[in-house]
Amino acid sequence: MSATEADILARVAAVIESRKPANGGDPATSYVAKLFDKGLDAILKKVGEEACETVMAGKDGDAQKIVYEVADLWFHSMIALAHFGLKPEQVLVELARREGLSGLQEFAARSKKAAEEEPND
Amino acid sequence: MSATEADILARVAAVIESRKPANGGDPATSYVAKLFDKGLDAILKKVGEEACETVMAGKDGDAQKIVYEVADLWFHSMIALAHFGLKPEQVLVELARREGLSGLQEFAARSKKAAEEEPND
Amino acid sequence: MSATEADILARVAAVIESRKPANGGDPATSYVAKLFDKGLDAILKKVGEEACETVMAGKDGDAQKIVYEVADLWFHSMIALAHFGLKPEQVLVELARREGLSGLQEFAARSKKAAEEEPND
Amino acid sequence: MSATEADILARVAAVIESRKPANGGDPATSYVAKLFDKGLDAILKKVGEEACETVMAGKDGDAQKIVYEVADLWFHSMIALAHFGLKPEQVLVELARREGLSGLQEFAARSKKAAEEEPND
Repeated sequence: MSATEADILARVAAVIESRKPANGGDPATSYVAKLFDKGLDAILKKVGEEACETVMAGKDGDAQKIVYEVADLWFHSMIALAHFGLKPEQVLVELARREGLSGLQEFAARSKKAAEEEPND
Repeated sequence: MSATEADILARVAAVIESRKPANGGDPATSYVAKLFDKGLDAILKKVGEEACETVMAGKDGDAQKIVYEVADLWFHSMIALAHFGLKPEQVLVELARREGLSGLQEFAARSKKAAEEEPND
Repeated sequence: MSATEADILARVAAVIESRKPANGGDPATSYVAKLFDKGLDAILKKVGEEACETVMAGKDGDAQKIVYEVADLWFHSMIALAHFGLKPEQVLVELARREGLSGLQEFAARSKKAAEEEPND
Repeated sequence: MSATEADILARVAAVIESRKPANGGDPATSYVAKLFDKGLDAILKKVGEEACETVMAGKDGDAQKIVYEVADLWFHSMIALAHFGLKPEQVLVELARREGLSGLQEFAARSKKAAEEEPND
């Protein structure tokens, strides 16, 4: 993956952050601002909905649709993260930590969570 | 985000790919290999389960748990992608395309999907 | 439960059946007819959504909301059943069969499904 | 639906109630007692899982499997209700109320909930 692609999650997160009503996002014109305005339950409902649509796209076996629905799922997950002041970088750190990826231990060190019941591979 | 972090999704995807039974993954010792061995329905069930746990962590308002559950959700999404020979890079391209991130248009061009009903922001 | 209440599921199922466009249901005026008109994916998405809302109501611990969301979940399950020409009575028979309720064995006998992985209690 | 079938939900609910550890249910031998013992999150996770399996059975279009998964979904919904001291009869009352079933208004009168955003048909 190139450095340019590397920035995508961080840049999407920055766009999401800018859509918070407190940051000037307008619920009348922005989908994300409207979701923030509706609040946590509306955001979490979308996470559930997009997961269901990912499952359905998987059952259909339609590759383009699967990519599209997973993008929707990750996008709404990032809105949920943003609601709590969290960033996708923290999710990447957690993924690196649990996979024990060589050369990525420095990120693992930042993750405080003692993981229980996690998939160990 | 640094170049090192940029590689995390690609490297996690490579680990997942290596766990496919066809690539030598052993269902007896690897969680991911066992999921691949069980097949698509088992993988999609996990996507649904992890989304539900993300929603519950969100209701609890526990930041560490939210990061952990979103990591689980993205991880199992990537196993679903891998089942279809898809890569997280394609999800990033789709996210970049729909956000219209400046400087990322070259990735957008690769995305064939004419998006309908997507969140436009 | 009185005989009157006994009829509720059957009567709700009859209302749902009457809303099928083939039976004269009008998508312009009826929520259920509109769902049937949109098709199976739209119906299944609602089952997923209502389950998510039930989980969220459970996390809130709000009794009235839980009853309300479970009603929504069962209602949309019944629309899914109706899409396939199935009836809630068949679900009750399956519940009776697996619980081995005394005096209800005659219903169990009608259930053909050899159950695997079901909760045995 | 006969009076005998009418009793199924109430009888299943009674079996579930008897499985509460406080009522003598043994988590070592009873699936339901074990779920109660694990607590609310474990119960709600099962509701989410069974909804996902219902959606997947719907995508498969397998009638027997749909009946089976909806039975699982309703069964675990009833465990969630029981966790809060609620009964399936209250769900039936809510269904009757919102459908405005003739002859069932007496049940509607018991339902306190002023419904917002509910499907009106």
